[in-house]
Amino acid sequence: MPAPKRRRGRPRAGESDARERILAAAIDEFGELGYDGATMRGIAARAGVDSALVHHHFGTKADLFGETIGAPMRPDIALPDILAGPRNEVGERIVRYILETWEQPEVRRRGVALLRTAIGNKLTTPLLAGFLSRELLSRIALALDVADAELRASLVASQVAGLLIARYVLRLPALTEASVDELVVRVAPSVQRFLYD
Amino acid sequence: MPAPKRRRGRPRAGESDARERILAAAIDEFGELGYDGATMRGIAARAGVDSALVHHHFGTKADLFGETIGAPMRPDIALPDILAGPRNEVGERIVRYILETWEQPEVRRRGVALLRTAIGNKLTTPLLAGFLSRELLSRIALALDVADAELRASLVASQVAGLLIARYVLRLPALTEASVDELVVRVAPSVQRFLYD
Repeated sequence: MPAPKRRRGRPRAGESDARERILAAAIDEFGELGYDGATMRGIAARAGVDSALVHHHFGTKADLFGETIGAPMRPDIALPDILAGPRNEVGERIVRYILETWEQPEVRRRGVALLRTAIGNKLTTPLLAGFLSRELLSRIALALDVADAELRASLVASQVAGLLIARYVLRLPALTEASVDELVVRVAPSVQRFLYD
Repeated sequence: MPAPKRRRGRPRAGESDARERILAAAIDEFGELGYDGATMRGIAARAGVDSALVHHHFGTKADLFGETIGAPMRPDIALPDILAGPRNEVGERIVRYILETWEQPEVRRRGVALLRTAIGNKLTTPLLAGFLSRELLSRIALALDVADAELRASLVASQVAGLLIARYVLRLPALTEASVDELVVRVAPSVQRFLYD
């Protein structure tokens, strides 16, 4: 990948620091303005970098949105650990990890904003779907190693997405009032069954 | 059904024109005031018709809301039948009814638009959540008649919403390729367990 031509406005920033700041800025920009309203220039300004650096690190606006979707969850980091543990507890570990992550106020705020944007807009929906397929479903399917692995993984995604939407976006009272432990007890068996039964 | 008594303010309007104006007025009323705040009288006033005409065309407020937001499910009609059948097949009947309904192109089109709007917009999310609570969750909870009925019903809603979003909005390939029968086999046990186990 070619080096960026200019790096104005971030004199003390290392590569990974700039990347993180751009991601955080993108989450705020997409969350506040929606996909159509967000601009690479606006994201660069929030991050205090030149927009060329945003393109250098993340490519197009669509590419960048795809990256921001994963930022609250980081399945690329979490999933290997979750899938490597005892098989009869994978469902429980998936549900607990996701809910405990989303219980962090900053993750929840960003996650809700990105879910709203991704589902609300025809242009961004395929970006969320692509992210799920690439980062989540393919990893789970690989670990399952059965013929219907992608269907099983997609059913898990349907329950997890539905739970996040019902609890954190729709805020259905019985789900917002339930504890993480209670929800793990209720939902984990469904995820476990989708995966292995 | 009795004929409306008065038809003030729409001298040149035919039946279908009045229907369209009432729908447009209902969209404004529900959008501005929410489901609880909206009244049939207020919608009639916006449309310039007598409220009897609103009832004549659309029935109850719930009926009109269902029409207005394109709610394709009509749980007020379907649920009593679904819940009245054999208890060990309620999960299967719920999942089959919902999927078979959404397989109808016009239902699917309106349903996808409703989900996008309701989730994508902070103002409309409570309309969907309120509708679900009032028309779906409370009916299921009443039929269950146990202390945690509302939580059970809300978990069912989370799985059903997640399945509809994953199959029809995100269009995850493994879910769009699966048949209704296949999805019923996979998902119905989760719904059944949420309700009764």
